[in-house]
Amino acid sequence: MEAQEAAGRGPGANETEQAAAVTPDAGAASTGTGASATRQGAAVSGPGASEQAALTGTGVSPGAGYGPAHVLVGDIPEPDKEARHDGDAAAERARAERALDEVAADLEARGARAGGEAEEVLGAQAMMARDPGLSGEVGALVDQGVAAARAVFEAFGKYRDLLAAAGGYLGERVADLDDIRDRTIALLTGLPMPGVPATADRPFVLIAKDLAPADTALLSKEVVAAFVTEQGGPTSHTAILARAMGVPAVVGCAGATSVASGTPVLVDGAAGTVRLSPSDDEVAQARQADEARRAVLSAATGPGRTADGHAVPLLANIGGPRDLESALANGAEGVGLYRTEFLFLDRETAPTGEEQEAAYRPVFEAFPEGRVVVRTLDAGADKPLAFLPPPEEEPNPALGERGVRMFRRYPEIMAVQLGALARAAAGTSAKVQVMAPMVATVEEAEWFATACRTAGLDSPGIMIEVPSAALRAADLIRAVDFFSIGTNDLTQYALAADRQVSAVAGLQDPWHPAVLDLIALAATAATAESKGCGVCGEAAADPVLACVLVGMGVTSLSMGAPALPWVRAALGRHTLDQCRAAAAAARTATSAAAAKAAARAELPGLAALAL
Amino acid sequence: MEAQEAAGRGPGANETEQAAAVTPDAGAASTGTGASATRQGAAVSGPGASEQAALTGTGVSPGAGYGPAHVLVGDIPEPDKEARHDGDAAAERARAERALDEVAADLEARGARAGGEAEEVLGAQAMMARDPGLSGEVGALVDQGVAAARAVFEAFGKYRDLLAAAGGYLGERVADLDDIRDRTIALLTGLPMPGVPATADRPFVLIAKDLAPADTALLSKEVVAAFVTEQGGPTSHTAILARAMGVPAVVGCAGATSVASGTPVLVDGAAGTVRLSPSDDEVAQARQADEARRAVLSAATGPGRTADGHAVPLLANIGGPRDLESALANGAEGVGLYRTEFLFLDRETAPTGEEQEAAYRPVFEAFPEGRVVVRTLDAGADKPLAFLPPPEEEPNPALGERGVRMFRRYPEIMAVQLGALARAAAGTSAKVQVMAPMVATVEEAEWFATACRTAGLDSPGIMIEVPSAALRAADLIRAVDFFSIGTNDLTQYALAADRQVSAVAGLQDPWHPAVLDLIALAATAATAESKGCGVCGEAAADPVLACVLVGMGVTSLSMGAPALPWVRAALGRHTLDQCRAAAAAARTATSAAAAKAAARAELPGLAALAL
Repeated sequence: MEAQEAAGRGPGANETEQAAAVTPDAGAASTGTGASATRQGAAVSGPGASEQAALTGTGVSPGAGYGPAHVLVGDIPEPDKEARHDGDAAAERARAERALDEVAADLEARGARAGGEAEEVLGAQAMMARDPGLSGEVGALVDQGVAAARAVFEAFGKYRDLLAAAGGYLGERVADLDDIRDRTIALLTGLPMPGVPATADRPFVLIAKDLAPADTALLSKEVVAAFVTEQGGPTSHTAILARAMGVPAVVGCAGATSVASGTPVLVDGAAGTVRLSPSDDEVAQARQADEARRAVLSAATGPGRTADGHAVPLLANIGGPRDLESALANGAEGVGLYRTEFLFLDRETAPTGEEQEAAYRPVFEAFPEGRVVVRTLDAGADKPLAFLPPPEEEPNPALGERGVRMFRRYPEIMAVQLGALARAAAGTSAKVQVMAPMVATVEEAEWFATACRTAGLDSPGIMIEVPSAALRAADLIRAVDFFSIGTNDLTQYALAADRQVSAVAGLQDPWHPAVLDLIALAATAATAESKGCGVCGEAAADPVLACVLVGMGVTSLSMGAPALPWVRAALGRHTLDQCRAAAAAARTATSAAAAKAAARAELPGLAALAL
Repeated sequence: MEAQEAAGRGPGANETEQAAAVTPDAGAASTGTGASATRQGAAVSGPGASEQAALTGTGVSPGAGYGPAHVLVGDIPEPDKEARHDGDAAAERARAERALDEVAADLEARGARAGGEAEEVLGAQAMMARDPGLSGEVGALVDQGVAAARAVFEAFGKYRDLLAAAGGYLGERVADLDDIRDRTIALLTGLPMPGVPATADRPFVLIAKDLAPADTALLSKEVVAAFVTEQGGPTSHTAILARAMGVPAVVGCAGATSVASGTPVLVDGAAGTVRLSPSDDEVAQARQADEARRAVLSAATGPGRTADGHAVPLLANIGGPRDLESALANGAEGVGLYRTEFLFLDRETAPTGEEQEAAYRPVFEAFPEGRVVVRTLDAGADKPLAFLPPPEEEPNPALGERGVRMFRRYPEIMAVQLGALARAAAGTSAKVQVMAPMVATVEEAEWFATACRTAGLDSPGIMIEVPSAALRAADLIRAVDFFSIGTNDLTQYALAADRQVSAVAGLQDPWHPAVLDLIALAATAATAESKGCGVCGEAAADPVLACVLVGMGVTSLSMGAPALPWVRAALGRHTLDQCRAAAAAARTATSAAAAKAAARAELPGLAALAL
């Protein structure tokens, strides 16, 4: 990905005039390749208006987001050992005290807004910042000529060592102390404030190199207007989180962290553009476009189908009963992926059959007459469970004894789960289907199907997420009743590119023609036997790719609930033949970006969604 | 894999009379599935001869091996804390002293045989065993009623703690002390002796659960008659090592470690059978068969070709100049895989262009007019180099920034290597070709090809080891001059099964029809453009699979040198049409075992090789 700032560059062959703030920047920007310098604002603000800068990346969660930039920084660097102030010790001391005071006040204010336990924690942190011993230490160093930032660093260092040596509860407070130190130094040196604010007066655009789950644990849609990251691809944590939250996001956006915190930013999560300091007109226009788009989305209701009436059930991916509300609110026709891991995590022993049955039943009951596809426990070395010790150390857990492989070692765990699912299903009208993850061979598929049928579950299926299973789908489909393609893992293995590693995120793209080939093999094999082939990976949540999947013969799509209206609208605006043409066009391409561009060219209805 | 002992079982439907010791046990045993109880010896020794036991597994390195079993054991268990002797302290003390003395004498004798540095190291270990303080400590404990084994354990414990606390050189001797302790306890308790003997009066059959590189570092063909492991598959360390050494091997052989050390064992590394206590006639017959087979192998000389004259160059995989002798001795027509990692490992800085040029030249000069295919540095997180720090922690190094991906981050490392290769090639008549590992996309292939051509290397190629590259081979071949298929990694990714993990070794089989499909895609794409498509993974060293590969359109085969005569002979006994029929038969199968059996049925010439 490349991003260029238009400001400061003269007009040239690669630059395009662009009027609307949110209408998509054709293929180039949204596919994230060949980003061209863009000259914005002119048409909106009239000739002579100042040029504004734009960055481009890959749009991974559609919608428009506007707010001040909050640039997440890493560690605050240690101030120079030799840093001295200019000689006015009293002024420098006052500056240090003001900074400490401001940090404390900010912590208290955030605590008061958050209330509850957060208020206590932040209040305790504020007390540390107001510790008179600490400010005395800082003052003494400043009096010796040390610059305030360095004085803060050294004074905190002493307290830090004491706390760390004390160990236990006090030792664990070292991180709090470091946070106060870094905030104070940031204020004194003009560096951006570290950490993600848990609250905000108005939603901000969170900009970071990349986001880890720890960074985003406390975030909500009320606080974050959009996400922008420099690294990551369509299956990165940021992309998945953004889609789950229904917040616009652009990833792979080079140069994003150079934006100054506080800069107003307008993000188009479909086009993949990030406008800096947009004009009021641009923001207003983006909001109007967004509202128009939302109207289109709201107008698309009912079961999933193409414009010519080809039914494509739209299902939700869920992790437990807590996800049901959003699934139902977004019109899910059922559940296409019910992950059952959460029942098993953080326990010393496996949940009993009764516990499991009680957990499964409310999910089944939420979809009377609807489909609920349950994935059996997908544990393994990367999600170790205390009661399922891994057989040996695995240097590459993703290539180890995962999913159905683990069940071969612990068949009693599987028997209890299948029994609980059968009993829970028996009491409801939902059409419950059970599938196994990580199936690679015909023999594994047959083994699992037999176990399901023995337990009274008569419609067994398998995930298609290992390349060998897709390549030999015509053999495997004979053993089971349906496929569900897990595009995230399928892409990971087909490209040999770890989903969790930013450095190879560029390869982790389900648009890669090789991945499309594998999906087509699975869908074609299932169709030939008149059996179902769904997709439950992130690919199904991409409204453009969803059309391509349907064009390749995929029979249902399952996704995080917030994506459902987008996919429903995109499908409803195209005929099955248009979807087929888009699929054929994508598969003739030789790169992921070209495949996406080729598909878009065959899908004119995307424009109404500004996709 | 299943293994059953015939002894103690009555004759039954699944049992087969079997006369010859080494002729292959049809498909069943050598494919490692459906192992049937086998009744041996009867025909050889005449009716009434005692039945002998056999185990079966997967034969991974052909040939017959005969010798006493040496069962490699893991840690010697700690003797029971409460273990007391029967009251005769003097006798028990004498027993302990004899054991220590025997261990010391054994170490000295092995040292004397080995000579050089090994003699010094083993002599120092023997001195520890003869330490009077240690035996005094043992004697004192025995006098208190402690059993000799427990007394040895405790007395060594004290010394162990002292050494460990001393750190440095002494601290590193803890492992030596543990080795002496375990050997002494093994003698006292009748447990098998731990560790692999580095020397032996006669070659032994090494039996283990699995073998790690550390277990086998000192082994030679003079010491090991055959390998048998309970775990592992065709690409396990044991299989690769055995083929490299030219020693017969059977892996995945359940029950093997239950064999008592010292039991005479006859191993057929093609059929995958392990006979326990064979009769003299059986051994003689196996030796005769082996000699006959070796005669067939020696008779096959000259360049690789099928019976009807279709040329298939047979090349060697090498890691540096030290592998040249074996390559030339086995008639390699060139080098199909020259791994360049060894130049880069264990260094603080990258080797200079001059150093590299000097290392490459002797390899090129060894094959005047011959082909030498060099693989550029295949480093990454699993082979970290001090001067190429990984960009981030990789939870699955095999799916991380490996091979050509790492070159994208460090293009200067690649430029120096390509420059050195070009200069070294310019001075010789060898046809030098350079290829990049881990290419996944067309864009990567084009990038590498351009870099090669810029450096003056005009015949760039790529490894096909990522499934996406095989799936899109028709796109990738346009960017390069040749393919070389790395079947080990290709299998690993296609089946999502780690090469290094025993628990998933059953999936790590290049005979899997999905892997054959990927190989066929690559070979077909190359053929369509009249370009070469070699195989340099372990699959090429399997004489049966080698015929199938040629039948799928593979144009050259590269392997560890000891496999060359086998592959040359197997190819020379079949026509290209027979190879094609074998390939077609294998690809209609739905499992690896069935694919192998189907291919064998089309290859009648294997019988002369007892394959």
